[in-house]
Amino acid sequence: MTDRRTSIGNSRNPETHAAILDAAHELLAEHGYAGVSMEAVARRAGAGKPTLYRWWPSKTALLIELYEREKTRALAEIPDLGSAQKELVALIKGVHRFWRKTPAGQAFRSIIAEAQADDAALRSLRDEFLPRGRATATVILDRAQARGEIAPDADRELLLDVLFGFSWYRLLTHRLRDDTGAVERLVAALLAAAKAGGSLAGD
Amino acid sequence: MTDRRTSIGNSRNPETHAAILDAAHELLAEHGYAGVSMEAVARRAGAGKPTLYRWWPSKTALLIELYEREKTRALAEIPDLGSAQKELVALIKGVHRFWRKTPAGQAFRSIIAEAQADDAALRSLRDEFLPRGRATATVILDRAQARGEIAPDADRELLLDVLFGFSWYRLLTHRLRDDTGAVERLVAALLAAAKAGGSLAGD
Repeated sequence: MTDRRTSIGNSRNPETHAAILDAAHELLAEHGYAGVSMEAVARRAGAGKPTLYRWWPSKTALLIELYEREKTRALAEIPDLGSAQKELVALIKGVHRFWRKTPAGQAFRSIIAEAQADDAALRSLRDEFLPRGRATATVILDRAQARGEIAPDADRELLLDVLFGFSWYRLLTHRLRDDTGAVERLVAALLAAAKAGGSLAGD
Repeated sequence: MTDRRTSIGNSRNPETHAAILDAAHELLAEHGYAGVSMEAVARRAGAGKPTLYRWWPSKTALLIELYEREKTRALAEIPDLGSAQKELVALIKGVHRFWRKTPAGQAFRSIIAEAQADDAALRSLRDEFLPRGRATATVILDRAQARGEIAPDADRELLLDVLFGFSWYRLLTHRLRDDTGAVERLVAALLAAAKAGGSLAGD
């Protein structure tokens, strides 16, 4: 509701808004990224193309909002599981599963691709979208610091860059899978390094 | 020279081949990815468009070969520096610098983006291009195992996925920079975990 675009959309016509996102979701599932055009979405949703463009300046903007809606539905917040190891593994594996099992993975690959050719798309991805995605991880790291599992001066930004970087790399090379405990081992390596005296703690 | 496409090109006319890559390099530096089209490259190189398409099926294939030529020029092999820490940091920082200071960074961003929409491009990226890029790192890890710096059963694939994943993430979000020792700290964390008994060693 803090997203200005969304609230304008909602204040105008929440049903049309939802119908458009539903239409984009269906087209993505049926035909992949190439099958989603503003025109096809408008037709399927029974809405006008100008309406779409008034609410979303581009296909990427529409897909980002769809991605966030689906993510909120698919991924609950990670509750306190008593250890940062368990919570971070649950978070990262949940994201990988979400990418693998729903059209969201293909949508996110397309969003990243668009951002390589378009500076505005890069800025929305980096400065609005990613920070929201990292918010859940931040809650986990707060709890980890409160429990003393990682140092007060642990380099949290670097730790998250590494976890998300690994995830992006597997997604973008189409190698997401439930493999032999890779996520568990990586999280353990990073948490060990983030303890006081470790290479991800202190300066 | 093991690349069949390259050797066909060379056997036909090495000067034209080099002129085409030079033309692509200039256009990329002057106008960015959008300024590189097969037609513009052909015109600048004084070659025929059919020649380009005979040697490279797509703009992505041309850019991948250009990227590899420039990389070979810019990045020497990493010599034995006496420690895996020093060698991996030299490798990763060298790659980051290469991406930051030459058009190669933009070219590589474009190659990754193309691979998200085109399965053939994804396969060349993942199955041909990335393994060549990892070869230098493999030499370093061989030396590290010979010195006993990492365990014989260290999970080398995961270690490299993490290092390259971090690098891709910074590249794709346009946050490559010589920052506060992040590469040094990450390499130290991974090497510590790859020692016997660490979370990146053993099963």
